[in-house]
Parts: sequence; structure tokens; C-alpha cells
Amino acid sequence: MRARAISTSASNARVGDGNFFSRSRDGRRAKTRARVGRGRGGRRIDFLERAPGMARRGRRRGRRARWPCAGASADGDGTSTAIFHFERGCAYGTKEMKDLLGSKGSGLAEMALLGLNVPAGFTISAACNERFAARGSTYVQSELWPDVLEAVSSLERTAKRTVFRSGCSLVGRAPLLLSVRSGAAASMPGMMDTVLNLGLSDACVAACVEAGFDERWVYDSYRRLLAMFGDVVEGIPKMDFEVALSQARSANEVRFDSELPAEALKKLCDEYKDIYVKHGKTFEQDPMNQLSKSILAVFSSWNNPRAVEYRDINRLSGLLGTAVNVQQMVFGNFNDNSGSGVCFSRNPADGTDKVYGEFLQKAQGEDVVSGVRTPMMISDLAGTQASAAEELNEVCKELEKDYKDMMDIEWTIEDGNLYILQCRVGKRTGTAAVRIATEMAAEGIITRDEALMQVNAKQIEQVLHPVFVIDETSAEYSGKIVAKGKPASPGAAVGAICFSAKEAKEMKAKGTPVILVREETCADDIGGMFAAEGILTARGGMTSHAAVVARGWGKPCVSGCGDIVFKNDREIRFGSSDKTFRSGNVISINGTTGEVLNASFPVAPSTIETFLPLKTFMQWVDQKRGIEIRANADTPEDADAAIRNGASGIGLVRTEHMFFSTTDRVHAIREFIMAQDETSSTIALEKLEKYHYEDFRGILKAAAGRKVTVRLIDPPLHEFLPSEKQLREGGAQEMSRYIGKSTHDIMEIAENMREHNPMLGLRGCRLGILRPSMSKMQVRAFAQAAIDLTSEGFPVTPSIMVPLVSTVDEFHNQRDLVWGVMKELAKENQQPPIRMEIGAMIETPRCALIAGDLARAGASFFSFGTNDLTQMTYGFSRDDSDAFIKPYIAKGLLRDDPFVTLDPVAVAELMDIAIHRARDIRNDIEVGVCGEHGGDPASLRTIDALDVDYASCSPSRVLVARLAAAQAACSRKEKVKTKPFAVTAA
Amino acid sequence: MRARAISTSASNARVGDGNFFSRSRDGRRAKTRARVGRGRGGRRIDFLERAPGMARRGRRRGRRARWPCAGASADGDGTSTAIFHFERGCAYGTKEMKDLLGSKGSGLAEMALLGLNVPAGFTISAACNERFAARGSTYVQSELWPDVLEAVSSLERTAKRTVFRSGCSLVGRAPLLLSVRSGAAASMPGMMDTVLNLGLSDACVAACVEAGFDERWVYDSYRRLLAMFGDVVEGIPKMDFEVALSQARSANEVRFDSELPAEALKKLCDEYKDIYVKHGKTFEQDPMNQLSKSILAVFSSWNNPRAVEYRDINRLSGLLGTAVNVQQMVFGNFNDNSGSGVCFSRNPADGTDKVYGEFLQKAQGEDVVSGVRTPMMISDLAGTQASAAEELNEVCKELEKDYKDMMDIEWTIEDGNLYILQCRVGKRTGTAAVRIATEMAAEGIITRDEALMQVNAKQIEQVLHPVFVIDETSAEYSGKIVAKGKPASPGAAVGAICFSAKEAKEMKAKGTPVILVREETCADDIGGMFAAEGILTARGGMTSHAAVVARGWGKPCVSGCGDIVFKNDREIRFGSSDKTFRSGNVISINGTTGEVLNASFPVAPSTIETFLPLKTFMQWVDQKRGIEIRANADTPEDADAAIRNGASGIGLVRTEHMFFSTTDRVHAIREFIMAQDETSSTIALEKLEKYHYEDFRGILKAAAGRKVTVRLIDPPLHEFLPSEKQLREGGAQEMSRYIGKSTHDIMEIAENMREHNPMLGLRGCRLGILRPSMSKMQVRAFAQAAIDLTSEGFPVTPSIMVPLVSTVDEFHNQRDLVWGVMKELAKENQQPPIRMEIGAMIETPRCALIAGDLARAGASFFSFGTNDLTQMTYGFSRDDSDAFIKPYIAKGLLRDDPFVTLDPVAVAELMDIAIHRARDIRNDIEVGVCGEHGGDPASLRTIDALDVDYASCSPSRVLVARLAAAQAACSRKEKVKTKPFAVTAA
Repeated sequence: MRARAISTSASNARVGDGNFFSRSRDGRRAKTRARVGRGRGGRRIDFLERAPGMARRGRRRGRRARWPCAGASADGDGTSTAIFHFERGCAYGTKEMKDLLGSKGSGLAEMALLGLNVPAGFTISAACNERFAARGSTYVQSELWPDVLEAVSSLERTAKRTVFRSGCSLVGRAPLLLSVRSGAAASMPGMMDTVLNLGLSDACVAACVEAGFDERWVYDSYRRLLAMFGDVVEGIPKMDFEVALSQARSANEVRFDSELPAEALKKLCDEYKDIYVKHGKTFEQDPMNQLSKSILAVFSSWNNPRAVEYRDINRLSGLLGTAVNVQQMVFGNFNDNSGSGVCFSRNPADGTDKVYGEFLQKAQGEDVVSGVRTPMMISDLAGTQASAAEELNEVCKELEKDYKDMMDIEWTIEDGNLYILQCRVGKRTGTAAVRIATEMAAEGIITRDEALMQVNAKQIEQVLHPVFVIDETSAEYSGKIVAKGKPASPGAAVGAICFSAKEAKEMKAKGTPVILVREETCADDIGGMFAAEGILTARGGMTSHAAVVARGWGKPCVSGCGDIVFKNDREIRFGSSDKTFRSGNVISINGTTGEVLNASFPVAPSTIETFLPLKTFMQWVDQKRGIEIRANADTPEDADAAIRNGASGIGLVRTEHMFFSTTDRVHAIREFIMAQDETSSTIALEKLEKYHYEDFRGILKAAAGRKVTVRLIDPPLHEFLPSEKQLREGGAQEMSRYIGKSTHDIMEIAENMREHNPMLGLRGCRLGILRPSMSKMQVRAFAQAAIDLTSEGFPVTPSIMVPLVSTVDEFHNQRDLVWGVMKELAKENQQPPIRMEIGAMIETPRCALIAGDLARAGASFFSFGTNDLTQMTYGFSRDDSDAFIKPYIAKGLLRDDPFVTLDPVAVAELMDIAIHRARDIRNDIEVGVCGEHGGDPASLRTIDALDVDYASCSPSRVLVARLAAAQAACSRKEKVKTKPFAVTAA
Repeated sequence: MRARAISTSASNARVGDGNFFSRSRDGRRAKTRARVGRGRGGRRIDFLERAPGMARRGRRRGRRARWPCAGASADGDGTSTAIFHFERGCAYGTKEMKDLLGSKGSGLAEMALLGLNVPAGFTISAACNERFAARGSTYVQSELWPDVLEAVSSLERTAKRTVFRSGCSLVGRAPLLLSVRSGAAASMPGMMDTVLNLGLSDACVAACVEAGFDERWVYDSYRRLLAMFGDVVEGIPKMDFEVALSQARSANEVRFDSELPAEALKKLCDEYKDIYVKHGKTFEQDPMNQLSKSILAVFSSWNNPRAVEYRDINRLSGLLGTAVNVQQMVFGNFNDNSGSGVCFSRNPADGTDKVYGEFLQKAQGEDVVSGVRTPMMISDLAGTQASAAEELNEVCKELEKDYKDMMDIEWTIEDGNLYILQCRVGKRTGTAAVRIATEMAAEGIITRDEALMQVNAKQIEQVLHPVFVIDETSAEYSGKIVAKGKPASPGAAVGAICFSAKEAKEMKAKGTPVILVREETCADDIGGMFAAEGILTARGGMTSHAAVVARGWGKPCVSGCGDIVFKNDREIRFGSSDKTFRSGNVISINGTTGEVLNASFPVAPSTIETFLPLKTFMQWVDQKRGIEIRANADTPEDADAAIRNGASGIGLVRTEHMFFSTTDRVHAIREFIMAQDETSSTIALEKLEKYHYEDFRGILKAAAGRKVTVRLIDPPLHEFLPSEKQLREGGAQEMSRYIGKSTHDIMEIAENMREHNPMLGLRGCRLGILRPSMSKMQVRAFAQAAIDLTSEGFPVTPSIMVPLVSTVDEFHNQRDLVWGVMKELAKENQQPPIRMEIGAMIETPRCALIAGDLARAGASFFSFGTNDLTQMTYGFSRDDSDAFIKPYIAKGLLRDDPFVTLDPVAVAELMDIAIHRARDIRNDIEVGVCGEHGGDPASLRTIDALDVDYASCSPSRVLVARLAAAQAACSRKEKVKTKPFAVTAA
């Protein structure tokens, strides 16, 4: 996004780009850098290396901007500014300056510039917090303090009120009271938040009363200051103040604080001061000391453990710190003609274009949020305060136009006058996001590209998956998180813990929803997994058995949750927590985020399949994106879902997953593996062929003529067997019953198959070459299904992909195998062979480098298996990498998990090399990406920048992937491709 | 090597290059291709697509070449020739035409061209064998036969004798008898070999006697034909003939066949014919039928199972088949003035420049080889046949000059005339090879470059290792081979089988040499391994524990011998053989070839350290080679050996190997791994630091100022623990005794460390980053050793290498770690830090691609870990790859094991990319290769072609590597490097 130019009063310089601050990639100290423009005379001006002048906007609300005496103070080291003033009509900042001014401060500046009625004030920048962190409180108390003092006097002049100083007369005017609020670039719970009514003191209160101000208002304001200052600055438990308040309500026999009479509030103030004493503190009576202490408290809170942890968890790095917003108080509790409220410019739940929010009369802002009284709906405001309500509507529209987004606004009405205290882009559900983006584009507020950029992956995903009814950003939600694993299969699920498949089936039969919790799952757990609402495993990644099966069913799953500690086989705990969870205890899991919650939150299914804005939105998406999106599907149901979600084909059928889905199939594949002679091998293969045929037929039919790419068997065969431990502990015996081989033989065969590094072992086409009967059977089943469907009149486009190729001869061998089977079938069916494309999967670095030779050897297409390619490029085992990738990210040694976000450096370079070499041989050779990266938005940006035709992802990620591909196309500087955009059937 | 130009009589075309035939890389049908030259008028002539004319040489022995009527016959399909004549002074072929004429045939043609006295004859080319294989005996009997008949008549004209036909008169001249001998391009035991005296029959014999020829000679020749033809053509057991012969000797009371009188021989002939009848055969009386049957027998023998197996084992692929040499018989058994012999132009055992060989008077060639009589030494020939002896000396010199090599010659004297029957390049010991090459160069017969190319890696290795006294190419040796594993540590060893370390130590104490045979070895086996003469393991590769330890000690070891089948823990068998080997049975192992032998061959140590020709030779080697050779050394003894062998530094110290060498060390490292708290971890590290310090000190001292590169700990820590099974079966209990942790704790810690794919797991710098205390200790120990030696006046050049880097930040982290320790030490030692270079090991494809960034990040040098790089580039686990690499090679899907021979395609390309990117940043950055490939000649050719500074290999391979590097430089077309050759201290 290009920011408009901003002129500075001091120099009339123009700044070309609003993106002033960038974070350094490695998480180290971010530099406050500014893009530079040219002054009028062509002189180069570094915007932020000088005190930035007051920014002006062309549009004003009829008022001339007045220049406060101290505009913005240059900091000691001259490299950045410390204090940024704002008042209605003018401000030393814009909404783009979030990094320096924080979200709140930049919003205030922006609104001031827009001419909205913002109480005047100033923002102490986040850079000061950084300096404080480096130099300690001396920085605030000596270096910064003169500037703060000057800023306050400037504010006094603007407000035409003064901070109360002893001996001051208040006749005719109220004292200048201040609000002090923190505000970083990203919202961050756990930090010091707000102190209101700062400036009140015993003397001031007395003077106010003497000057004739409403006693109730005065004491109400004072008791709020005492409680907040006590809590936030002095560290006195909030509860103590709340208990006293509650006692006061009882004593006065009232329900709400607002009904307490002045006398009671006055008494309460005294009690509050006693609470200070009880904790060995005294309330600070000097207003400027109150201010300095508050500033220090805000700055210090940046590094309190909760805030640090929050940033770690949310991977917020490179922030300077928090800014501090000091602002003239306006009073929603001033009289009956006053009130406070919050509102969204549109409905954040469903996106309807109507201001949505709540307010409380005669209350300060905190009351609305804290729920001390039930607020009224914003629609009722018109009844009580018609003009303010109308003004609020206008403000909403104006802010939407300015921010080009739906806004979340805090406001106060003081004696009939509307003040806007805060604005930010509003959070919304997926449904709302899609509707808002679509409608805003239709209204002309934003372009279609902007609409596409406004909806994020999570939101589009939310439209489709069951979700918690509770707001996932609320403290109530986040407070219940006990562990985090991999978001293996999206959606929310609640149920009683079960530790075995058997138990899960039993409890489900009794009508109890369950969450199956396992170390890892295997084929034997299928029944229990199906019975469960959701699956939680301690080990395994995004492609573990649990994850694959769960995604196939669209069942929520959190996998690889390393925090789970099995105390024994009936009890677990999470991480370092002592709390024991037993079988039957209810938990919630969020498969979209990977969170595990000690809670029983209600879950609602999302059923917006005929949601018109979504349809429109996805049309725009498809018109924009440069790559096709196909889906990985292992069952006809998967394929069906994928096509419904707009996949333009099935990019990957993982044949081996087909063996997992029922116990019979598991037995059949194990029978094949254990077969020591031709006959028993053939019998097992015949069984498997039947299963395969049905599945392939279903998938081809669901794809309705779109391309379906089947990958021949890929994993090492021993993956289909129980683990060594399981075999020892009865697994072999059980297998023996089904397979008719002795336990000893089974153990021996399994032992002989064991590998040191199965990921680099006998798998992929190596298996297809050395045990060709399995691959031949797969080709037969697939081709026969295609032949039969064709003769029944259904269109099919089948293709076969050879996995884990690293030499040209391997590809030759497998291509010959496929051709052999095709010829055989043609003979059997007495008709010419059907068209079957044969491609290679690029999963090893070597394969990437020889892609040209493979193209020359006749590969019809290529598909990058980016999971394996990442494993081999980094030398990271996906199954084991948790042990180092997590700590690497924590230490700043890795920015992203390369298994989640495609490495844009080396893996992408190998892909790029392969693509170039392949296209040098045959320019129109089809190139795709399959694997988990295909559904990840950040990875899709990388993929989009390559000359790739399609990405294939899991069916549930198809919408996300389509969107991400379109967003990548929006943010792409120029299209690398020489081909026209691929347009797909939506 | 450039071949001289050959003019063809038919066209006078010139062929520019003698390398007419090339084998197709994939082992499929080799095409008979010929390089083309230009005719006199500039017309393009495909040499072999026409019948090649008779080749002429400038130098003749005074005789004019006569053109036989049928020169060489064009084959039916016109693409190649079938029959190639030769006679003294002219021939239709040269020594370069081995592929078509076989080794024997091309040698005969060459000798004929040189004017040597070769009995006339013709060669039926190997291409005919190929056609026979495709079309069956019809090919020989109808298509080829007219040409053979014509060739025989031509030979009759040349020889001025005729094949005996009934009714023929032999008065005044002997009949034309023929020898028929097979001869492929490579020597190949197991194929049909020789039929002599072909043409004799009852009628012919009678006619000869009638014509007055010596009866003894006649019947001796006939009985030989009967026996050979019976054996070779009719498949009658040789033994039957030998029994009859032996009975004849007894009956006649003579010791040797040559003493049998004519009468006895005549009787023997009748008995032989009876043997035919006994086997349901009749001796073929028609000479031309004898010939056609013999040709068919030779052609068929190409594909008999023994021959096929031999080619498989020796990886001979792409051969057309065998040629058949039909030649006029000359008779060493003609009279007392006759004899047969074999000789080498120089001594093949020590290389002395003196003709060396044996001969028998009055004998045919087969007698010399078969040992029916003890032959005389060639030095005695001068006494009996002075002129023939002198002529033989001349022939030897002439052939040496022509072939530019030491020759192996078969000859016969018929009635005083010397005939040369066969010549080939002579096999020789390593010692002889070095001496011959050096002396031939000194004599001016060959250039220094040619001398370097004449000695191969095996030979130079042989100079240094203990070897079997028996000839390893003999049938006696190869017949004893029972299994083959990896040649893990070179040298020969003989001893009694022991299955446990304990047993090995006990038996050794009793004075019995033992071979320790284990599934695989671990640290607990150290004592037994040390006691053993050699080590044989069923599992593990070239870097397995057994291999590493054995190489460290210079003890022969064969590892990963998959043929071993453990019947129980006291008995094994090999492969499919039934024979059981028990503890105490004596076997031999050949660590140079990987062979296991059911034999007790004598072994001799090689002690030629002061062998002057070797010194000279290695000087030439060092002057020629373009890359430095350093050594991988893990102990001071290794380092010492390496420097003695001429290593120019220590390119890789694998710190982890230092933990294997004694039980105390194993306990200490396990203590560290099991340590759960800082204190116990520190105690364990202090122990390890002491061991490290001593080793590092010793290595640095041995290197005497040359660069020593230490690699920080690389393998996953669980590699130092017993296997899970071992732990379960008492290993944990034993560990518990030493480490003072409960068995349960040990099992649990080990369990938690287990990884799915340890090769891609928590190892290398990942370990150094996440458990830095170990790496810090290693740096401390190394740096302190360097500091101490410096202050004692010893020069040192220490450097540290970070393993398994895949991101720049990983390198940063480890570089900071090293710097931190260096600063600490400098402070402790109160002196400025010593110079310590820090480099990165390039082992992952990603690291190769970011080499430029690493160079920018300050890496002082790079070293390619080609083992890991190969694993990750191919996606082949070295530990598991036997399961597919072996069958791949057998199927022709891979030419070489990429862990033995560096992949010149993808792995080399990644290396090339890395080198270019690194040198783009800093042109003089040092780049090396460490790992097993550094000692492999084929790999060194690939390495030499890259812009690499050095290769590092095991100390025992240093000589080989130096030679291979020089040979690579010789065969390199042009030097890629821009730098001058590195000259190293030899």
C-alpha cells in the first residue's frame, strides 16, 4: 500500500512512503529507520532524523490548526523524537506511524488530523520505552522529564485548563485531569493498561468541591483514580478495592456503582487510601509525580513476564516497546447527559453494514468493558442522545473511508459532546470479514485488490470449520489454554478425555462426546478416532497418521503436542503444570490453532455454503490468482469436498493413506508385507486392488474430468506395521491371528525391515522398483477405474506420479512399469491404451538438479514434494525436528518452521532451478507443488513467485489457498510468468 | 592416450583416434561405434562401417606384407566385421581394438604388425558372439560359416599347409592343425578356454604316421585334442581323461607324460575315445566340424552361469562377448629342440628389469600352466636355446616399447624357432608397479605422466598394508571367497572366529590369532577388537564403529557383510551356503577388498618405507597433482601416520571418535549424556576435557605446524549409548553401575533421546547450539592445547569446523561460542587470543546454496562433508542404502555406489555452486573435501575438476589419494583453477 505524502511544517519535505519502520529479520534491535523524501528545493531530508513537523491534511473541520509551543521534542541523541502532540485538526503523526506511536497513539493522531473531536494530548513514543529499557528510570526522570513538563504545559494551554497545583483556584473551570494509557504497535494483554483521572488529589478534590463541581462526580472520579493507580502503579491487588466497593454497595443497598451517593463515594475514597496504607504505600498526592510514576509503570510493564511470554507465544519480535498516551480527560460520568461506549463501524459477527456496539450512561469507559452494569445497545443511543448518535455514525463512515476498513471505536459523551478516544481496525469473524470486504469494494471504499487483502486465511477458514462460540482473542479463552500442539486438522472440538480407542467407542456409544488422547495413533486406533469429536496426540506432525486421518474426515485434530506428559496410561498433565487430567475430564481442542484448553466451550458448526458474499469474493479471488489450486485427496469424500471448495483437480492421491482407513485394509496391507512367497503376496494384492479400485473410481468420478494425480506407494512398508514395542507387547500375536503367520516370523520379518533412517530408506520409487508388484497393482486399479468410467461415459484425466526420484533411470524404470501395465490392460480390455500422463515428484535435491534430464526422459509433469525437499535441503527430520526447530525459533535462529512456511531461500532456489531446467526442455511442462506448504499463505507467496502452474493442498485448505494465491498475486510486484493466468472452474 | 593413425589399404583413410569402441554407461547393448577420420580427399570415412583394410606399419621385419584373399569379411548387416586375419608383418587390427578382437586377438594383431613371429590365424570378433547370442547357432552355422571357410583356406595358403581331408596326401608336409582359443576384452575365468591340435582325426593321424612324422608327437598331439575337445566341447569330465593318463603313466612306470612312449600314447588315444563312448558321445572326426563345434562352445560359454556371475561380481558390463582366435598350431612338443613357456618382461613381484618366467622342454603351453612337470626358470633357457633366448629378450623389449608397459608373454619354440602366442600387460604387485613405472620413465620408455597413470590405487595401497602372500587373482584364492562386505580397513588378516570381545581376549592371551565376528561393534567391544587380528561385522558401513576404530589402528576390517547369517550366537553361515562356521574355525578377511575367505592364507606385512622408487614416484605425484591431500585423524597415532604418508595437514578431527577409544571415555561421555543437572554435567565434561586435551595436543604436535581442523561434536548423542535392545538386556544395568543413575532413569532418558531419523535429527551444530557445554569444552581443550604448545615453542595452526550448518544464524551462533571461549582463555592465560580459524562444514544442500552468505558471515574456510551431502542430495540413508543400492547396481540403475564414488552430477554441482558463491565473496577462501570420498580415486577425479584446495582422507589412504589426485591432473583436459598448484611437504 502506498501512503499518501505528508508535508512537514518545519521543512515542507515530502515523505514518499508511510512505511517508516521496518523490523530486522533476526529479531534483534529494530532500528528506527525512515524512508526519505526530497525537500522542495530537492534537498534530501531524513524525516525522522529531524523533529517531524506538524502534519497537515487538506480537509479540516473548519478550524485552523493551532501550533502548540512544543511540537515534538527531539531526543537527546538526535535520531528520533520522543513526544508527539495531537489535538483536533492537527497532529505530529499519522496512522502509518504505528511502530513509533503505537496503535492507540497513531489512531489518535490520525483522528486528530481528520478533524474528529479527539481530546487533546500527546504520545510519548515507543522509542522512549526502548531507551528506558536501556538506561533505566533515570532516562524518564531526568532526560525525558523536561519534555514531558513542556508537553503538559502545552496541553494546559490547549485545554485552557491547568493541572491542579496546591493553592490553585478552580473557580469557573475544572482542573486538567489526564488519562495515561499504554499502546504498543500490536495489542498486547498483560501490560499495564490505563490510569484515568490522573491529577486528582485530596487537595484537588477539596478544591473541586469548593468550586462547586458535582460532588458525586468528583468522588466517583477520585475513587477510580485511587483504585487504578493502586492496581497499576503501586501493585496493590485490585481485589482489595473491589471488595471495598462491593461492601459500599451493600451498605448503601444499591445494585450499581453509579447509584452510590456522593457521601458513600467520599467514604470509599478514604477506605481506598487505607488499603494503600495496609500495603505499606501512600497515595501519591502530587499530580506530576502521579504522571511520572504512571509513565514508568507503563514502560516497565513492557518487560513483565506475562508480556514477554505473550510476545514469545505470538512471535512478536522487533517491537520498540510501548508508547504512552497522555490525554486530557473527558468525563462520561460527568452527568446524566454523559456516557461512554464502544462500537464497530459494521457488525463484527456477520458483517452487516450498521454501527454495532454498546454504551453506558454516566459511566467511564472501563465500566462498559468490565461489565459492572449491563450496557445498552448502540441502537438505543439515538433515543437518548440523537445528535451524538448521528455524529457517531458519521465518524464511523469517515474512519472507514480513511482506514479503508471496518473500525473499532471507543468514545465518550461529556455533557452532550461526543469525543472519540480510540480507534483501531475491528476484529471480526470470517463471515463478517468476507461480507465487509465484498461490500466495501462494492461501495467503492476499497478496490477489489484491497478487498482480497483484507480477508486473512484464518477468517476464510473459519467460514468453513466448526468454531468456538467464544471470542478466541478474549482473556477468558486464552486463560484456559493449557498446551499447544500442531494445528493438524482445523475446527473446534469439546469432549471427555479418552486414552484408548476402545474407551472412546464405548463412551461415544453412551452418548458422551470424547477427545481421543494418544501418544500417537496407528491404524488400530481408527475406530476410536472415528468415534471421537477430536484427536489430540503427543507425537507426530502435520502428516502423522492422526493428522492425515482426521483431515480426511474433517475432524479437528491437534497433533504433536509435546506438552502432554503421560503420568501413566490413565493420567496426563500438560507441560510444567501440576494439574492432572484423567480419563473423563472434559477438554477443548482447537485444531485451527493447535491450542488445548482446560474448558468446555460451546462449539457451533459453520454452514455458510450458500453464503452469497463468499461466492462473489471467491470469484474475485479466482480472477486474481496466478496459480491453480488443486487438492490432496485420498478418498472419494475428500475429493468431493475439494471440488466443492473449488479445487481445479486432485493434485495428489496418497495411495498409502487408502490402506489406513479400515481395519480390513490394514490387515490386507500387512498380509502383503509379510508375504514371503508369490502366492500369498498375490492374494493380499488382490484384496488391496479391490479397495484401490473403488477409491480411485470414486475420486475420478468426483473430479468430474479434472486431472487426478495418483502417487504410487511412498512410505517405507514398515510404517504399516505396529511399532516394535507394540509388536512385542501383543501386536505380533494379534497380527498372527489375522495373517496366519507365526508370531516369531512376524517379529523376524519386522525386525529385518527396520531402518536407521526410514525417511532416507527403502521408500518411494525405490520400493516401486524393488517390490514392483505393489506399484503394478496400484497402476492396474487406477487405470482400470479410468477405463471403466470412460466406457460409462464419465470424463476422466488420470495421471501417475513417481515419488522420491533421484536418478533418471529410476524414472525410466517406473515409467516402463506403468506402460507395461497399461499395455497389458489395453490387451485385456481389447482397446487402445487410455491416455495416462506420467510425472515425477521432485522431493530430493538431486531430483531438482536433474529436472531437465527428467523432462528429456519424458516426464509429463513435475510436482514438488516440498515436505521431503525441505527435510533433505535442511537435513531436518520432520518427525524429530521439534527438538530443535522450536528452540531455534525461540532463540531467533529461525524465523519460521520451514515445514510450515516454505524456505524462500534454498528450497525455493532448488525449485526455481528445477523449473528452469524443465522448461528449458519443454516450455509447457506442467509444474505443481503438493504437500502441506500448498495450503500455507506465506508459502504460497513464495510458490506464486516461482513459475509454477498449481499448488495442491488438503481439501479443507482449498479456500485458504485460493485466497492466499490471489493475495500473493496482489502483492507481487510484477508477474514473472510468461503464460496467461490459469483460469479454473470454481 | 592418443593412438597413432592407421591407414587402411582399401581407402587410405586415416583414423584419428584408436579408441574405437565405447561402452554405454547404463550397461545396455554397447554399440560398435568408430571414431571417424577423413580420407585423403577429405571424404568422411566411417572406419568400422566399412570392412577395415589391412593395417600397415612403417616398420617391417624385412618382409613385404602379403594380402590374403579374404581380408576381413563384412558382416550381413554391414555394420561391423566378423573375421580379422593376422600373420607376421600384417594384420587387420591393432592393440587398441580389444573390445572387438578381445585381449588375445588384439595382442596377436599387434604383434603381427610389429613383425614378431606370430603363427598366422584369424580372429572371429566378439561382435559375432553378440549376434550368436541373439540369433542362436544358425548364425554360426549358416551366416558366419562361409566366411570361416574362406578364412581357413586363406590360412591354408599362408601356412602352406592344408587342413587334412580324407584322401589327402601328407607327404613332405604336416597337416594344418589349429588352436582355437577364446578371448574377451577382459580376462574372464569360467569361460571355455582352449582347444589345441584341432584338425587331427583317426585318418589324419594314420596319414601322419604314414608320412613319417614322429609317432610320439602325433599321438601326444592327438590325445591332447581328444581330452580338450571332450572336456570343452562335449562336456565330458576332465577327470576321466586324467585318470586314464595317470593309469598310463603307472602302467609304463614313468613320472611324466612326456616320458610316455608312442605306443602308450596310441593306446591312450583309444582309451580316450572309449571314454567318449562311455558318455554317449563319439569324437568328431571331421576337422571343419571340430572347428564349428569349438566356435559354438566358446560362444556359448560366454553366458554360462559361472561367466555371468563373474561379470556380475566384477561389474563387467557393456562387453560384446568373447572373440575366438583360430591359429595355426606350432608345436612345443614337436621334439627335444622344442618347448613352451610364459614370461614377464620384468619381474612382476619386485619390478626388477629382467625377463622373468618359466618354460618346459618338449611340451605344449598348457603343461607349463597346469604344473604336470616342474618348469625351468627362464634364465636356464639361454643354456639350452641360446638364440631363442636372445630373441625372446628382444621381443620383450620391443613389446614393452610398443605397449609402454611390462608385458606377460606366452611363447613356443618349435624345432628351434621361437613363436609368440600371446601377449598382454602383466599383472604385478604394488612394489613392482612402482619400481617399473619409475624405471620405465627413467629409461625414457614412458613419460612421467604415463608413469603416474601406470600405477593404480590398489597397488600403491598394497605397498603399505599387510597382504596375502597368495595371488589374489588366482583361482585358489577366489575359490575360497565365501562372502563380501565393505572394505572398511585395508589389509589381510587370518584368525580363528570369535563371537565376543571376551572370547577374543582370552584366545589372544593363549596365543591364538582371532578374527572378531560381530553383528556390529560398540564401545564395549574395544578390548576384543584390539586383541583381534581383524574385525568382521554383519552391519555398518565404512564409518561404522568397527570401521573407524579398525582404521584408527590400521587393523584389517570388513564391515557390513550382509551375507553373514547368525544361526545362533555361536554359529554363523554365509549367504545361502549351508556350511556352518563355529567359534574357533579359521577364516581370512581381506580388508582391502571386503572379501571373507574360508581359508588360512599366509599373510606378510609390507615394510617398504625406505623404498627409493616409491619416494621418487611420490615426488613426481606431488609435482603433478593440483590439490593438497590432508588426512582425517582422530588420534595422535593417526596424525603421525598421516604425516608420515605425506599428508599436508589434518583436514578432519572427528572429536566424537575420541570418545570411543577406551572404556573410561565411553563411560565419561555416557555420564555427560545422562547428566540431568549442571553439576554432574560439568564433572563429566571435565573428564572428557582431559582426554580431549591430550589427544589434541598429540595431534597438533604430530602435525608440526601444519593445519589441524577440528570438527565440533557431530553425531546425535544417543549414538554413544547402547542400543535399545542392549539397554533392555542388561546394558542399562551395567551403565547404572558406572554412572550412578537408576536403570529406570537411564532407560527413560535414552527413550526420550530416541529419534525417527537420527541422521536428520539433533546432531551437528544443532547439538552445539542447544547443548553448548560440550562444544565449549571441546573448543577449550583444543585451544588450550594450541596455546600450551605455542608457549613451548612448537608451531601450531589450529582451526575449528562447525558441522551440519544449514542456516547463517547457526554459524553465527557457533562462531560466537568459539570466540567466547577464546576470549575467556585469553583472559585466563593473560595473553592475547591465539589465531583460530573458524569454518563451516557443507553437508546439507541448503548450506551449499548459502555458502556465499556464510563467506560473508565470516567463515574462514569450507569443508564439504560429502557423505552427508550425498545422503541428503539423494535422500539415501547410508546406513540403510544397502537394501537398494546393491540391487540398483545389479539392475543397472546406478553405475556406482554414490557413497563410494562421488556423484559427479548433482552432488558435484551443489559443491560447484557453493564454491562459486564462496569465491565470489572471497576469492582466496579455503575449500576442502573431507570424508571417505577424499580417498577414492574416481571421486578425486570429480573433486579435482572442482575449484577445491584440498581433500582429506583417512591416513591409510593418503598415498592413494596423492596418486589419484595426480592421475586426475594427468587426465584433466585443462586446469580450471586460476591459482598455482599447491605444493605440499611430502
